[in-house]
Amino acid sequence: MGRKRFRLGHDHGGRVTVRTVADIAGVSIASASRVLNGLGGSPELSARVRSAAERVGYVPNAIARSLQAQRTGLIGIAVPDIGNPIFIQMVRQAERVISDSGRQLLLHATKGDAAGEVELLRGLARRYVDGLILSTIKVTEAHHAILSQVAVPVVVTGQLLGDVPVDNVWADNTAGVQLAIEHFVQSGRRRIAFVNGPLDTIPGSVRDVAYRSSVAAAGLAVDDDLIENGDFTFAAGLDGTRRLLDRVRPDAILCGNDLIAAGTLHALLASGIRVPTEVAIIGMDNTALAELTFPRLTSVDLGGGERGRMAARMLLDRLETPDLPPRHESIVPFLAVRDTTVPNGDL
Amino acid sequence: MGRKRFRLGHDHGGRVTVRTVADIAGVSIASASRVLNGLGGSPELSARVRSAAERVGYVPNAIARSLQAQRTGLIGIAVPDIGNPIFIQMVRQAERVISDSGRQLLLHATKGDAAGEVELLRGLARRYVDGLILSTIKVTEAHHAILSQVAVPVVVTGQLLGDVPVDNVWADNTAGVQLAIEHFVQSGRRRIAFVNGPLDTIPGSVRDVAYRSSVAAAGLAVDDDLIENGDFTFAAGLDGTRRLLDRVRPDAILCGNDLIAAGTLHALLASGIRVPTEVAIIGMDNTALAELTFPRLTSVDLGGGERGRMAARMLLDRLETPDLPPRHESIVPFLAVRDTTVPNGDL
Repeated sequence: MGRKRFRLGHDHGGRVTVRTVADIAGVSIASASRVLNGLGGSPELSARVRSAAERVGYVPNAIARSLQAQRTGLIGIAVPDIGNPIFIQMVRQAERVISDSGRQLLLHATKGDAAGEVELLRGLARRYVDGLILSTIKVTEAHHAILSQVAVPVVVTGQLLGDVPVDNVWADNTAGVQLAIEHFVQSGRRRIAFVNGPLDTIPGSVRDVAYRSSVAAAGLAVDDDLIENGDFTFAAGLDGTRRLLDRVRPDAILCGNDLIAAGTLHALLASGIRVPTEVAIIGMDNTALAELTFPRLTSVDLGGGERGRMAARMLLDRLETPDLPPRHESIVPFLAVRDTTVPNGDL
Repeated sequence: MGRKRFRLGHDHGGRVTVRTVADIAGVSIASASRVLNGLGGSPELSARVRSAAERVGYVPNAIARSLQAQRTGLIGIAVPDIGNPIFIQMVRQAERVISDSGRQLLLHATKGDAAGEVELLRGLARRYVDGLILSTIKVTEAHHAILSQVAVPVVVTGQLLGDVPVDNVWADNTAGVQLAIEHFVQSGRRRIAFVNGPLDTIPGSVRDVAYRSSVAAAGLAVDDDLIENGDFTFAAGLDGTRRLLDRVRPDAILCGNDLIAAGTLHALLASGIRVPTEVAIIGMDNTALAELTFPRLTSVDLGGGERGRMAARMLLDRLETPDLPPRHESIVPFLAVRDTTVPNGDL
């Protein structure tokens, strides 16, 4: 039986894995795992999986079994800032999936501090949670090192740079920025400014590159005077836009997120500038805040809630089927068009 | 020694408690407890407490000691709605205190469902957390029953009706509504409407009563046509204000919270009504949202962050000193005056 096993697939120790059973039964790894763990499946499916398992001599991973017995029923979620509605959206959707599975969510606020995140990942060795959803905006070498040998499953939400063998769900920031710039250009805007977040964050730097290439692709000049970088906060949007207005007069402003956009809107209205007739605004993240300002914000939807939900599901899959190869899922953005770009609700 | 003990104070089993030791040493119960648990105190304080403990024959509670050994290091916090910035404020401040104590915060979103909250309190029998901060807006008989015999310490943030032997920190809603009505009246408003939350919640009903009595106290007529009740959401503020404007023309609107106030502001501006010249607005909770709308919201500060911080501290005190009598702390509100009542930033 040995040869057959090795031909079909094995783990590093040379044993038959769930994947082998799934391949032979012609079902997904998740389905095979559910049947083998006694968690259900149709009679027909169960019969196929059980017969495949018997054929290849599948033995459940004893260490995995023993770990399972020690599980806490807790899942951690670490986000930089619970004052930012994007992370609320994410936590909320993750919470639904986690609580539907009978587990509970443990909230960490990391303040986006990279060293603190690495410390948190190290602390997982104490196994006080069964797994962690980590929403990070700065990824360092130390993140990569620890993510490769972390004690419990981790799903990262947010863009990773380079190849990290970890489950990951991220939004395509570049495509999102392109959508925004194209919308501005199609509505006749020519002096498009960018009040962005910090360049030492992944979303900040990826969006900066995307803004420059999209503006250039539209045949417009890239002008550093049109760019401001600050935090991803309302106050930074307010201050950045005031500084911007002191030196240039844009006809459109892209904002690094909806909090910045609310600050930009506030600064424009306080200066007596009409939105969107004189200056159009687009935010990013399409949070609850975008519906709530007056006029309502046009915003790039980067699937924040969807990322929370997918991350939670990926983590539950991983707990059920530790053998799964690392999965990287990306979200395709869309533009939610509202009153800060379409002159209907003009002030 | 027996007589002396009983004269000074004892628990239900007739044993000497930390309180007795604290009384004799002339220090607070918390200080006495810290010394007796080896958690510090000045040399002079320690000597006094130790000598008092020796005098009365204090023996640490063995059951409490054994429970302490089984502690999880986790504190739960249950809030109705993490989409409402008031609960974010509360969770954020509680999280700081809890994590400074070396513990971690477990987040529950209850959706304000009373039955779900009672279920959660029952579930504490499994002792998966060391204690719980429960933020509730509806308190039923079932809450009272279970709160009187709950398995781990609970601190309730929010107003309780009747005498419940549980640690509680609440905001004086009545005083808060009075501040708002007085501010409107002093600035010459005479037709003061109220877009409130649901009357079957404690804040909703307490604020309704306070609105009516404050309006009457100002010598104005109480008119049911000026009152709308809906959810504590932006959408309810928007809809309630539209219905209100269909039948009356107020010169001021008090809103049940800042989310409602943002909806009210949106509805007024969309109808071409100038804020605050024609209609002034006051929100409640003084959340981050109040700084973020244009014009910025005047709002009643009910100490949301402070309630989170105090609740966390009360819970840590309770874990350290189970003998403490139940404490009820209230927050004195103040009015944060901004542009929706003072015509400076008029649109």
